Amino acid sequence: MQRKINVEELNKYIGQDITFSGFVDAVRDKKWVMFVILRDQTGKVQLTLEKSEESNQQMIELFQNLSVDSTVKVNCKVVANEAVKLGGIELIPSNVEITSVAENLPYDYNNLDGVNIDTRLDYRWIDIRNEKNMLIRRIESCMVNAMRDYLNNNDFIEIHTPKLIGTASESGSSVFEVKYFDRKAYLAQSPQFYKQMAMAAGMNRIYEVAPAFRAENSNTNRHTTEFTSFDLEFSYINSYEDVMDLEEDLLIAGLTKVKEKFGDKIKEVFGTEVIVPTKPFPRMKLKDLYQEFHDLYGFDIPTEDIGDMNAEAEKLTYRYAKEKYGHEFMFITDYAATKRPFYHMRDENGVLQGYDLIWRGTEITSGAQREHRFEQLAKNANEKGLKDDVKFYLQFFKYGCPPHGGFAVGVDRLTMLLLGLPSLKEAMFIFRGPNRLEP
Amino acid sequence: MQRKINVEELNKYIGQDITFSGFVDAVRDKKWVMFVILRDQTGKVQLTLEKSEESNQQMIELFQNLSVDSTVKVNCKVVANEAVKLGGIELIPSNVEITSVAENLPYDYNNLDGVNIDTRLDYRWIDIRNEKNMLIRRIESCMVNAMRDYLNNNDFIEIHTPKLIGTASESGSSVFEVKYFDRKAYLAQSPQFYKQMAMAAGMNRIYEVAPAFRAENSNTNRHTTEFTSFDLEFSYINSYEDVMDLEEDLLIAGLTKVKEKFGDKIKEVFGTEVIVPTKPFPRMKLKDLYQEFHDLYGFDIPTEDIGDMNAEAEKLTYRYAKEKYGHEFMFITDYAATKRPFYHMRDENGVLQGYDLIWRGTEITSGAQREHRFEQLAKNANEKGLKDDVKFYLQFFKYGCPPHGGFAVGVDRLTMLLLGLPSLKEAMFIFRGPNRLEP
Repeated sequence: MQRKINVEELNKYIGQDITFSGFVDAVRDKKWVMFVILRDQTGKVQLTLEKSEESNQQMIELFQNLSVDSTVKVNCKVVANEAVKLGGIELIPSNVEITSVAENLPYDYNNLDGVNIDTRLDYRWIDIRNEKNMLIRRIESCMVNAMRDYLNNNDFIEIHTPKLIGTASESGSSVFEVKYFDRKAYLAQSPQFYKQMAMAAGMNRIYEVAPAFRAENSNTNRHTTEFTSFDLEFSYINSYEDVMDLEEDLLIAGLTKVKEKFGDKIKEVFGTEVIVPTKPFPRMKLKDLYQEFHDLYGFDIPTEDIGDMNAEAEKLTYRYAKEKYGHEFMFITDYAATKRPFYHMRDENGVLQGYDLIWRGTEITSGAQREHRFEQLAKNANEKGLKDDVKFYLQFFKYGCPPHGGFAVGVDRLTMLLLGLPSLKEAMFIFRGPNRLEP
Repeated sequence: MQRKINVEELNKYIGQDITFSGFVDAVRDKKWVMFVILRDQTGKVQLTLEKSEESNQQMIELFQNLSVDSTVKVNCKVVANEAVKLGGIELIPSNVEITSVAENLPYDYNNLDGVNIDTRLDYRWIDIRNEKNMLIRRIESCMVNAMRDYLNNNDFIEIHTPKLIGTASESGSSVFEVKYFDRKAYLAQSPQFYKQMAMAAGMNRIYEVAPAFRAENSNTNRHTTEFTSFDLEFSYINSYEDVMDLEEDLLIAGLTKVKEKFGDKIKEVFGTEVIVPTKPFPRMKLKDLYQEFHDLYGFDIPTEDIGDMNAEAEKLTYRYAKEKYGHEFMFITDYAATKRPFYHMRDENGVLQGYDLIWRGTEITSGAQREHRFEQLAKNANEKGLKDDVKFYLQFFKYGCPPHGGFAVGVDRLTMLLLGLPSLKEAMFIFRGPNRLEP
């Protein structure tokens, strides 16, 4: 098999005859010459057809009659030419074959400013042809795989947990119900219980990157009914500080790779700098942060949110982290136990052994040491009125289970914040919301 | 953070004082000495306590009263001792802390022969403590990540496609229905349509490893309602032979890594040799294979299966591939178009441009060049009576779409065949069937 040669690697083929395939991005039919811009997932390249050449006539006619976004396969020579803006390379074709013909496009994907986001999503496969959107897909893949590599190199085992579950876990309110033969099943909101089952099984360190489902009927830029969750859990920790340490390393691994591979391109296309954070990320107790917000910004958390954050406090956290520490990230600890899941550990004074991580004004993670002691865990579940729902889960902790902790981070949210995108709708390959199940 | 030291790497710490954490696998209380076997995800190690040592008395008493499968954290010195069967290493403890206490186990996971598979699955977190089962989890993770690495190094972009879909695609019969606010959604049987959407979007090469759902009410060793599908699709192919070539490379990458990392261990624990196949895998037309089966084994395919395989033919394919080619794999081509999905391409004579791959008597993949020409694809869909169901999908091919192909392979099935496991129930981390939604 001859692998397709990408635009990005054409400079390795200078002087050679190759086959190049791609979409027709534009045809510029000048008096003496025709330029055809071709495009693939890595970029654009120019095809040059001198009109004076007798042998070019058939190809010129072909391109004059071919619609933009049709696809072609071209036999050509790769030529270095400094005058060519697109990478200093041009392709001189000897033969062109049309592999598909495009109808008129529903909108101009190169100029999305005036296009309604719903129209864009209706034709998502056209939307992704936009240079930014194509780059988003490559960057997300790069980041996720760099994060996986970090874990694979640190004894983590990848697992695949079931998304069809027998009880509406955690809380029944926002779970999708599935008709499962003659009974009901539910779609997992997170792999939390199964990650912890792995700990009880004696797997020291596990991760999963998989869909998670939330039946929340809200149409905002931050909500989706289905998202990709990057989840991990590991045993034999001393405290939740170990979990924060690992999250730092994981994010640094992801961002380092993205900067290395796409840093220049991101600056060029998104006007954003990829900042690889330094260790340790600033860490602060919620109460101390409230005090700082009060003293510095005159902000007091509303009574109903005491013990927790709200959207404005998250924004201020970013401001504070930058002003005080010159950092984009901040860990916040000592949330109220009442505001957090029953499976987060509390110390002997009831202080929650967990944290949230805020990046650029948005919470990206809740992490914690988990309660691995059966009696205490059962007590916590009872307090939240979950005794029956989590019966099967409690069993995991009866037959030996080491201390452990973990966290989850939403892949699409990371992508959105990394690139400064206005909405999850642009960050996700295919968005799902209460009113969107298509395409 | 001090990362947990694994049994497998203890030989790097000889002569050093370390902290070692793990499950108590066994306590052997002899007259003059106590041996405590500790276990983690990578293996077992011996803790040695001389009874004559005054300073050991407290620890000895602790272990005498501690149930098997409790977890401990031990301060100890790592000592090389050739007399120790477990890796020639022993740990000499100075302090032991109990981190969890195990109740009596429901069954002996070291001896699963007499234990019913359903009881085993009911307590899956105990089942995985079995050496074989723990190793299965590590091997699967290793194989999948080696396959991902191969793709990442060959320009593939990882995507995450939605599992909640708006129409019961491909065929309505075996799709799970989800209550989606005030309408219905369905669980994706495969990411097929979305993989192809990516091709239409101009992404050259994509893959996804994600759950897929089948609402089939059958309780066999080969069926599950939810499985992990390793899917890929790539553009600018010349024919389905390119797809077969890529699948060869992908499987070789996965198996090479498994052999390198776990080959000896697999031989020791499973009694199985990991065979890295040679290229090319034998390829044969279905009709020619029928003829060989008739001539060599007196087997004729039943009339209703003509143009396709059945279970017996798959078994014979393994026998034939071994006898004739000394190979474990075989590609079979030229299936009847009527027996295959409408989106598989056919040539001008109606011959299907796809294949099945058989490994050790079981079909592991159907691959194909896809029909990317809108008119032809619509015609194929009509013939199968799917016109309305696939309306949204057909749109992908109207606005330019390059020739492309791909395949899927079930991760759990690969694991099962690699290790010679009797059932998917043992290959999957957590099995799902019509009667099993727990744990």
